[in-house]
Amino acid sequence: MAINVVGSVAYDSIETPAGRRERCLGGAATYFSLAASFFTEVRVIAVVGEDFGRRQEAVFQARGIDTRGIEHTAGKSFFWEGSYLDNLNEAKTHNTELNVFAAFEPKIPEAYRDSEFLFLANIDPVLQRRVREQMPDVKLVAGDTMNYWIKDHRAALLEVLKGLDVLLINETETKMLAGNNNLVQAARAVLALGPKSLVVKHGEYGATLFNESSPKGKSAERPFRAPALPLEEVVDPTGAGDSFAGGFFGYLASQPTLTPAAYKQAMFYGSVMGSFACERFGTERLQQLTRKEIDDRFTVFRELTHLD
Amino acid sequence: MAINVVGSVAYDSIETPAGRRERCLGGAATYFSLAASFFTEVRVIAVVGEDFGRRQEAVFQARGIDTRGIEHTAGKSFFWEGSYLDNLNEAKTHNTELNVFAAFEPKIPEAYRDSEFLFLANIDPVLQRRVREQMPDVKLVAGDTMNYWIKDHRAALLEVLKGLDVLLINETETKMLAGNNNLVQAARAVLALGPKSLVVKHGEYGATLFNESSPKGKSAERPFRAPALPLEEVVDPTGAGDSFAGGFFGYLASQPTLTPAAYKQAMFYGSVMGSFACERFGTERLQQLTRKEIDDRFTVFRELTHLD
Repeated sequence: MAINVVGSVAYDSIETPAGRRERCLGGAATYFSLAASFFTEVRVIAVVGEDFGRRQEAVFQARGIDTRGIEHTAGKSFFWEGSYLDNLNEAKTHNTELNVFAAFEPKIPEAYRDSEFLFLANIDPVLQRRVREQMPDVKLVAGDTMNYWIKDHRAALLEVLKGLDVLLINETETKMLAGNNNLVQAARAVLALGPKSLVVKHGEYGATLFNESSPKGKSAERPFRAPALPLEEVVDPTGAGDSFAGGFFGYLASQPTLTPAAYKQAMFYGSVMGSFACERFGTERLQQLTRKEIDDRFTVFRELTHLD
Repeated sequence: MAINVVGSVAYDSIETPAGRRERCLGGAATYFSLAASFFTEVRVIAVVGEDFGRRQEAVFQARGIDTRGIEHTAGKSFFWEGSYLDNLNEAKTHNTELNVFAAFEPKIPEAYRDSEFLFLANIDPVLQRRVREQMPDVKLVAGDTMNYWIKDHRAALLEVLKGLDVLLINETETKMLAGNNNLVQAARAVLALGPKSLVVKHGEYGATLFNESSPKGKSAERPFRAPALPLEEVVDPTGAGDSFAGGFFGYLASQPTLTPAAYKQAMFYGSVMGSFACERFGTERLQQLTRKEIDDRFTVFRELTHLD
């Protein structure tokens, strides 16, 4: 089933120990869409400036992603500049220019109205909420956020959390949002804010799925941990989290029923897509990926963790 | 089959966010023995002072551990004082008194000569090597070490590594030993120093088994990752690594053949024993454990990571 995703389509200038790239195509919605497109139909809602042209459009089209919801306006696209020179697990932001995003009013095109899945990528929670309200009847809605919104826009963010089925954030964000340094306690506190499930991303250590507790002892309600692949070289971690979300949510959207087993598989596909994203700069690796490579890596992840 | 273990039997004064305990029974060989005793016969080689009496002896005897190789001499037992107030993943050492350990000359009792497994717990590599040389024909030898020996006693340590089948160290130590910050590259460099297998412990993120590379593509040579249980409360992480080693090596020693599948199971049992060790101060939890609790937690670890 189709996913609507709202979020940034942007340019990134990135420096890592492996080198530097200027103005790569990036943005959370871009990574998410590319990753999810290997599993299901994806429709993007975003805004770009005059610097977004046919070449960028072609990246989405090559993966069959619907871009009719990408609004083109005067000005420049969202721009981010960051580096990972000291720590590959955490970006240091040097510059953020909202540009056309500053006045973004997300509109859901008529052609997107029948999508049953909604992903709210990391943007201003006020915008996330507005999109959510335009799609009250979706089957499943998931979202992401970041430290900035947790710290300085908490009230707006809490409103968004109430309407989420799945929240995907990293471990630091989970602890910050809960005000608790113990992962299990923090996860429980976050689930009490609204989401039915919480996916905590641990970077190179994988990710953990926590579920709303229910009458005791049902194993489906227990946490589930997907590994990350120990990588020989991390070229660029930008977008790994968004790619995880795309693999996770894309897989779920491709399933006829959302069973606990489907969520576990989705966790693995999320980790798989996150690991590919790190192998080249920007979206390069996701653009060149094949479904066979994805399934082969899924097998490697299974062997990495399964006793038999 | 029986394991000989050489290492410290000691007293620890420990402070964690959960409280403080004075002079708990501790030491790497103690944690290792208690954990391994749930799987196989264990025989300890160590030295203690006059402060080690019948009550401490009884802790080993209750688990059927052979203590004939624990030498009693004049003076005080090894003593360590540390805290985990800022970071549960890393101890801050306040005091280390070698005491009777300063003049330790490990001797293997005649009754221990037929042991087929040998574990060299974290002590001076010069002593590890001497024990190793007294048992040249064991079936499997594994060992541990720490940052202090890696930094300041490297030459002696490198001699020990040449004679090891399995080295178990934490991630920081792996990277320090290899002089490389990438885990996969560091693991390969450490394996080149001698050990056939390397178990890298990641604390709350579990542990990874790396094997000597062999003609490509054999899945048994791929890394294997065991999870750690997300714990609601970590009372005291002291000895978690030694308990991991005890579960890992104890399980291997209980197996008729050392297949790749046995190593994977051993990784899980290691993680299980490490998780129990953290639940109470010192060795309290290991002393009260039952084999049924161990197998129940093994099942939980499987559900935590397995797709089906």
